[in-house]
Amino acid sequence: MHQVALESNALFIGIEYLATFICGLSGGLAAIHKRYDLFSILVLAWVTALGGGITRDLLLGVSPVGITDKGFVLAALISGIIVAVVHPEIDHLKWSMITTDALALGLFAVNGTAKALAYHSSGMTAVFLGMFTALAGGTIRDILLNEVPSILRDKHLYAVPSFVGCLLTVFAARATDRWNLGLNGEMTLDIIVVIVVFVLRMLSVKFNITLPGAVERRHT
Amino acid sequence: MHQVALESNALFIGIEYLATFICGLSGGLAAIHKRYDLFSILVLAWVTALGGGITRDLLLGVSPVGITDKGFVLAALISGIIVAVVHPEIDHLKWSMITTDALALGLFAVNGTAKALAYHSSGMTAVFLGMFTALAGGTIRDILLNEVPSILRDKHLYAVPSFVGCLLTVFAARATDRWNLGLNGEMTLDIIVVIVVFVLRMLSVKFNITLPGAVERRHT
Amino acid sequence: MHQVALESNALFIGIEYLATFICGLSGGLAAIHKRYDLFSILVLAWVTALGGGITRDLLLGVSPVGITDKGFVLAALISGIIVAVVHPEIDHLKWSMITTDALALGLFAVNGTAKALAYHSSGMTAVFLGMFTALAGGTIRDILLNEVPSILRDKHLYAVPSFVGCLLTVFAARATDRWNLGLNGEMTLDIIVVIVVFVLRMLSVKFNITLPGAVERRHT
Repeated sequence: MHQVALESNALFIGIEYLATFICGLSGGLAAIHKRYDLFSILVLAWVTALGGGITRDLLLGVSPVGITDKGFVLAALISGIIVAVVHPEIDHLKWSMITTDALALGLFAVNGTAKALAYHSSGMTAVFLGMFTALAGGTIRDILLNEVPSILRDKHLYAVPSFVGCLLTVFAARATDRWNLGLNGEMTLDIIVVIVVFVLRMLSVKFNITLPGAVERRHT
Repeated sequence: MHQVALESNALFIGIEYLATFICGLSGGLAAIHKRYDLFSILVLAWVTALGGGITRDLLLGVSPVGITDKGFVLAALISGIIVAVVHPEIDHLKWSMITTDALALGLFAVNGTAKALAYHSSGMTAVFLGMFTALAGGTIRDILLNEVPSILRDKHLYAVPSFVGCLLTVFAARATDRWNLGLNGEMTLDIIVVIVVFVLRMLSVKFNITLPGAVERRHT
Repeated sequence: MHQVALESNALFIGIEYLATFICGLSGGLAAIHKRYDLFSILVLAWVTALGGGITRDLLLGVSPVGITDKGFVLAALISGIIVAVVHPEIDHLKWSMITTDALALGLFAVNGTAKALAYHSSGMTAVFLGMFTALAGGTIRDILLNEVPSILRDKHLYAVPSFVGCLLTVFAARATDRWNLGLNGEMTLDIIVVIVVFVLRMLSVKFNITLPGAVERRHT
């Protein structure tokens, strides 16, 4: 059970709360920029933080933690309340937000993939579910705000690092099984994966690395 | 089983059909204002009336009544056909629509929360599912029409009364269990909750009561 | 088990792959027209091709093939890669795209309805699920692109042929059971249904056949 590596450990649990909190801040901030009311701020904080996990759980056929787990719901709502007060400060922290957002991207990718594997999904399905966990919350936020989702619009690598992270998480789980790395071994590998996702995303934003589009050809 | 209070009673069943019918009218009307064809009118009537319940049932992991219950599907589609004919009259009934819409908001909040409790959801989860039942249909309608959903856009209290209603429905169910109020007691409480939601919503529209947004602060 | 008729037969399986591939091309093309990057092209190809089936499977409560079946996922992703290269040619094939799209509409309608019946859905529920299979992929694509979905926007008959196809598929399954038509009988009927959907759609585009909207009345 790979889930064990993530759920039995205080470090990982703390980190998951951090990811929820960070995504909640970014969702609440989007609502504040549109001058919505307090309730809408809470709605967007909640959906951005937990919408990805809800999508994953729906597709897995399990009870969605985004509406059943009191701790995560509280973390998301508290982030909404906090951002409603300290938004001027957060607006000034552009790079901090990009940094923490990149961290959340990695954390949710590893977390979603590991949960899918724990429910005996195949590697491919686990990669899909990891990516949903990392990307669906922000996508639902953007759909509600009537904007094209970041996953399509962001010119920098955004979905690609999460894809790489999900793939590496599957490899880490397979390696743990094959070579009996144990809980500490898997945890170490998972932390490395989070760092890889984080670094990929940050390098892409910093050095303006983008994917090519369709092949440009003159039609004859 | 709290569901019993809602489903065993002709009054409540009649009221639920009414709520479905009202939401169907409002969905169909939105399609007519965009000059869509008859099929799109039916699609929007159906999704507005039953999309909330479908979302609730998906999250609960039960068979979605919005595609399985012939009575509710018929009620939604008939509302679409009727509004395609009598839309000029309904356009003149602005206050009647706001009134009936507020009634539907209360009815669906109580209904969704009670169904979630009947399936042994926790209080918090039941509140979420009640709110999804009351708000998701209109949200899906607005997403399909490529507009920011009312739940975010409406300046008056819209989501807040439904939240209060869901919370009170949980308390009503708890009170029924603790003090053995029986079917009639719970029904009375549920009717009071519907009235509370209705009055909150109407007062908010009538007297322009709104929630504050984020705290306004000059950044120093 | 009506599913048998569709799944046990090489012709039908080949045809389903073809429908997935065609929808993938149309999704990828939409991303290319918006000048999105390669990853977004793949996302839109995948969601357009398999989003309908995922919606159907979620509502049916079964494991969604769009993230579990390697063959269909590969077909969708390959269509995205191909369209990223040959998009100028495909842009010149407007009628070919409308034609193949109409074919996919019929194939997915029959396929979704038959799968729902195989899982013991009622006729009405099977019609809903067939229509979701045929229409939800394109609808999700349009929502992600921040456009009003074709199902509402397209002036020609688009949802109506799929509705007729789903209804006829239910009748075909009922007829197969009642008169013991066997696998070949049902397959023949299903192929006829696909042709009916295809012809209805093509006639509507070719001869500009549309549904009326709401009844136009002067309000007195």
